[in-house]
Amino acid sequence: MTSLKVHSYAAGDWIAPGSAARPIHSAVSGKVIAESGGGALDFARMLDFAKSKGGPALRAMGFHERATMLKQLALYLNERREALYEISYDTGATLGDHKFDIDGGIGTLFVFSSKGRREMPDGNVYLDGDLERFGKTGSFMGQHVAVPLHGVAVHINAFNFPVWGMLEKLAPTLLAGVPAIVKPATATAYVTELAVRMMLESGLLPEGALQFIAGDTGDLLDRLGGQDVVSFTGSAATGTMLRSTPGILANAVRFVAEQDSLNASILGPDVAPGSPAFDIFIKEVHREMTVKAGQKCTAIRRIIVPEEQQQAVIEALSARLAKTVIGNPREKDTRMGALVSADQKADVLTKAAIIGEEAERVFGDPDDFAVHGNVDRGAFLPPMLFHCADPDAATKVHETEAFGPVSTVMPYRDLAHAIALANRGEGSLVASVITESGDVAREVVMDAGPSHGRLYFNNPTSAAEATGHGAPMPHMIHGGPGRAGGGEEMGGVRGVLHYMQRTAVQGSPDLITAIGRRWVPGAAEIEGPAHPFTRSFHDLDIGETIHTAAREISLDDIEHFADFTGDTFYAHMNEEAAAANPFFPGRVAHGYLLLAFAAGLFVQPDPGPVLANTGLDNLRFMKPVVPGDSLRVRLTVKQKTRRTAEYGEVRWHVTLYNQDDEVVAEYELLTMNAY
Amino acid sequence: MTSLKVHSYAAGDWIAPGSAARPIHSAVSGKVIAESGGGALDFARMLDFAKSKGGPALRAMGFHERATMLKQLALYLNERREALYEISYDTGATLGDHKFDIDGGIGTLFVFSSKGRREMPDGNVYLDGDLERFGKTGSFMGQHVAVPLHGVAVHINAFNFPVWGMLEKLAPTLLAGVPAIVKPATATAYVTELAVRMMLESGLLPEGALQFIAGDTGDLLDRLGGQDVVSFTGSAATGTMLRSTPGILANAVRFVAEQDSLNASILGPDVAPGSPAFDIFIKEVHREMTVKAGQKCTAIRRIIVPEEQQQAVIEALSARLAKTVIGNPREKDTRMGALVSADQKADVLTKAAIIGEEAERVFGDPDDFAVHGNVDRGAFLPPMLFHCADPDAATKVHETEAFGPVSTVMPYRDLAHAIALANRGEGSLVASVITESGDVAREVVMDAGPSHGRLYFNNPTSAAEATGHGAPMPHMIHGGPGRAGGGEEMGGVRGVLHYMQRTAVQGSPDLITAIGRRWVPGAAEIEGPAHPFTRSFHDLDIGETIHTAAREISLDDIEHFADFTGDTFYAHMNEEAAAANPFFPGRVAHGYLLLAFAAGLFVQPDPGPVLANTGLDNLRFMKPVVPGDSLRVRLTVKQKTRRTAEYGEVRWHVTLYNQDDEVVAEYELLTMNAY
Repeated sequence: MTSLKVHSYAAGDWIAPGSAARPIHSAVSGKVIAESGGGALDFARMLDFAKSKGGPALRAMGFHERATMLKQLALYLNERREALYEISYDTGATLGDHKFDIDGGIGTLFVFSSKGRREMPDGNVYLDGDLERFGKTGSFMGQHVAVPLHGVAVHINAFNFPVWGMLEKLAPTLLAGVPAIVKPATATAYVTELAVRMMLESGLLPEGALQFIAGDTGDLLDRLGGQDVVSFTGSAATGTMLRSTPGILANAVRFVAEQDSLNASILGPDVAPGSPAFDIFIKEVHREMTVKAGQKCTAIRRIIVPEEQQQAVIEALSARLAKTVIGNPREKDTRMGALVSADQKADVLTKAAIIGEEAERVFGDPDDFAVHGNVDRGAFLPPMLFHCADPDAATKVHETEAFGPVSTVMPYRDLAHAIALANRGEGSLVASVITESGDVAREVVMDAGPSHGRLYFNNPTSAAEATGHGAPMPHMIHGGPGRAGGGEEMGGVRGVLHYMQRTAVQGSPDLITAIGRRWVPGAAEIEGPAHPFTRSFHDLDIGETIHTAAREISLDDIEHFADFTGDTFYAHMNEEAAAANPFFPGRVAHGYLLLAFAAGLFVQPDPGPVLANTGLDNLRFMKPVVPGDSLRVRLTVKQKTRRTAEYGEVRWHVTLYNQDDEVVAEYELLTMNAY
Repeated sequence: MTSLKVHSYAAGDWIAPGSAARPIHSAVSGKVIAESGGGALDFARMLDFAKSKGGPALRAMGFHERATMLKQLALYLNERREALYEISYDTGATLGDHKFDIDGGIGTLFVFSSKGRREMPDGNVYLDGDLERFGKTGSFMGQHVAVPLHGVAVHINAFNFPVWGMLEKLAPTLLAGVPAIVKPATATAYVTELAVRMMLESGLLPEGALQFIAGDTGDLLDRLGGQDVVSFTGSAATGTMLRSTPGILANAVRFVAEQDSLNASILGPDVAPGSPAFDIFIKEVHREMTVKAGQKCTAIRRIIVPEEQQQAVIEALSARLAKTVIGNPREKDTRMGALVSADQKADVLTKAAIIGEEAERVFGDPDDFAVHGNVDRGAFLPPMLFHCADPDAATKVHETEAFGPVSTVMPYRDLAHAIALANRGEGSLVASVITESGDVAREVVMDAGPSHGRLYFNNPTSAAEATGHGAPMPHMIHGGPGRAGGGEEMGGVRGVLHYMQRTAVQGSPDLITAIGRRWVPGAAEIEGPAHPFTRSFHDLDIGETIHTAAREISLDDIEHFADFTGDTFYAHMNEEAAAANPFFPGRVAHGYLLLAFAAGLFVQPDPGPVLANTGLDNLRFMKPVVPGDSLRVRLTVKQKTRRTAEYGEVRWHVTLYNQDDEVVAEYELLTMNAY
């Protein structure tokens, strides 16, 4: 096979590797299979291309359109995933590993698409949190919003997940409305390049939304400013170097980092050897040691177990590791493939030797292990388990990340000690605990939470659906403090906001309504041409309002309602007991009677565009309604969210007043309306 | 008067200025009034004191207890504010300025106290966002939480707001549960020191929660790690230097910065000269130029106006500035005091000269202006207004922050041009627009939002309650991208979260419930000793559940309800129209009928600890209920929030099932219960 030429994609052109291109070796055969980089890239032009074409085109779409684009990209890649699997074997990964990378990446696009449509508005301005009121009359208020940055996201990725690593950054970036420049690690750049080619060929992305650097970033980082974001995954050393770039420091460029991590897994003090929970622990640790040959930023590096269970854990783990077939990833019996390169193998051996200064190797001999299948000079290693008997005195086991199938068992005395050991990692991406105790879980969250971006708990109740210690889910944040880089990715909308600017907006209700396309109290009430229940989703204006007639509430109504519904709560039925209550002057109307009467006042009963009442939010009863009071309603179109070609959700602001124009209740009503 | 000796407060001891102390001059008289710094501080001991005493003591309190502490601190300082006013005159500030600083700072404590009690849980674990579900059975789920960092917050403050500048950082830090070390700017450190003394003397703060550095930070920043936070306010040059500290970079220490900012105010294209909106614009700009003699990070530096209105703006502003009495801040007629120091005055003159290279000074002569009152060698300057006729060609007016009463008028052609000019500041804290147009406001948010941490809109509707271009409100974020430092402070709970770690928690429903003290579906249902409506707030357990009997819903019920309430919507009354609806098989029960019947099923009617139904959240109707269906209810104690000594709020999880155990509706009900 001719070696692959990994191209860059810059300002609309594919740029072939140049004279300074680097060779890429197969992890399995050791042969050169590709070359990458060394092409002449004009970074200023790339940034300009992204900012002048990609950004405006993405911002011209709304969140929902961009979410739909992500779904289409996911479907497009999904149809082509076999080709991505095929090209991935030379990275040393097995089919199971490919699925983690490729299917995981595609799944991330799907989740962000879904989150974008369900949790972000049908528009361009994201509303962050509630309205803030300053004065008594409500003529001036505050609303936080988020809008897309006008810059470029530079994604610098690690070698271990050439597809997922790109897509987990790309999904929130594109959903935010920001163009990206992707720079993969050289060792697996040929896989990423194929996925990039697919996405560009799909025609789904606007021009300038995605560019690709095969090779070095040159002076790119020094050209960034306050509207740009760097999102980096890699070693702490590289991360520190990159964030020290003078331009990044001087321009306060956002720098999201996901770096080294000495992730821990704790066997809970409540778990007995031989129990189902114990087996779950062994299974989780085994998986994290062997999937991707341990080349996962979330892999378990430290196995923290009750001191009386050290031997049981070592024996159970060793037995399971002994059955793990290592070898050619194309062979179907193989469970663990090769490390990505000979360099990586050498690095892991160096780090393992450092760990070996404080811990004894109790399983796995790098000089003596079986390799399955027809392989040549591949970068194979066996899983290696270490035992550190005195983790308090040790330092290297808490600091040295051997980025391969290497992990260390260490004993703890009690839960506080286990947490202290977990925190010795000085900030990590994930810690897990196998426990069935809520008290253990809560203590871990309080005391280990500050040091870990994710805390994963598993036990027999959750095992069937648990997603795995090492699997960052797109719904949850991925990142961690300190050594782990202090960054945060994914986490649904949280990850999208890293590519947007949160801005505090202050102004009159009318302006706040116009900005957020969400009516707020105090803004103009628009009189529509007809009852709003007779108007289609499309025709309804935000702010369209009706005021109903009033209806008096009698004691008979209350008694009738109590009798009919069975709700004979004393506040409605017993004058003396109601008056003794600190909130009521005497018998009061049922809250649901008010809601039902309100609907009776505002509903237009004829068949029409309103299809269903789907829900209700933020109902608050502000003032009791007593017999003789009367009730009237203001009903206003608050917000519109298109759901399908046929219908959309209307959120109504509903205010119930008494005869003195005092607000007695307020809520938001949801209906589904025909388009 | 003997000069004040500004002490440090370190590890429980007051440390007097040492041999290397720096003199502080009165801004008004020029005389030395204090000395500060040069004491021997043991920074390692200070950090240890904070981490070993302050942190644990604060974390032993919950959010509500810490919020109450903030309120008590505010009340304590409020009683002593006259002494703080009195000592502040030597900073050059007027009584009005003191109120901005001192009352503003105290007000910030009050707002954070209120936010803490209303928006944060009655406990220690903050729940961030909704539950995430992964599998079909719901046996494993995710919840983001935030917990206090275990480190120290180092606050490095600017000279201009010696009290507010400290308290706006301290309020969210203490509410988060993190101890602080405060380092003020030397020029006004004597004011901050007095406020610190008051807070420490109050006895309200746990030992180690607050320490104070009069002088330099030495090697403090190099000693910080991933659990620590630096929150800096000052110049961009200093900010860049501090964030370049090797330890900060290597340990990914959180660095929140609020730096330079060339804030703009835009006169909207819709505003006519002489109109009330025009007057508001002149008033806002005048205030920002003169309050604190323009020494505000949010002051308006660039006045962006329609080109045809340049002269009108210059004339109106000049007329108003001409009436501004400059002089001794103790004199009651004085409207603008002195700059903080002779150094600061010299710096402003230097920067004004740079601006003068591109703009013409049209008001204010630093060599010829009247100073009111008995002053000696004070650092007085007049307000200086510049006019830059070609702001597109200019660069210095967009980059040079003269931190004093200096501002530049510049013309724009259309709104897009105005926004482009505002964005030339390369990131600022606030931009304001005086406009009555929702379209203008929305365009500004979309296109200027990415470059500004706050967008302030004002017009005659909002003027009476508007809080002012330059006033950062504790409810809203304060910070900005790029030149402004990329940081964010305050903004209610958002600001608190900067001192906490957000962590993604995954686990079984029982563990998620135990961690968040909030029951989630799938967690154990606890059988209580009696109906939960008969049990006091204190006795109720989270998870306590009852399942009611079932009630059949008849067509008669639906018709009766329609007749009684007046809600004769076709989906309930017209079989043919209901069946034509995409969501319904035929006539269905009213949603409010279901809610009311549900209450009839679960309410225990006798007088008891349940005082009132106060509201309802997140109601969703999942499946229609047709005549002949029956309804039963599961009612579970979801969350408890103590409100007063007498009562607390109970949030109930309510699930409505049909005869096939399908969920037909789900919601959260709120009641107020006697303790």
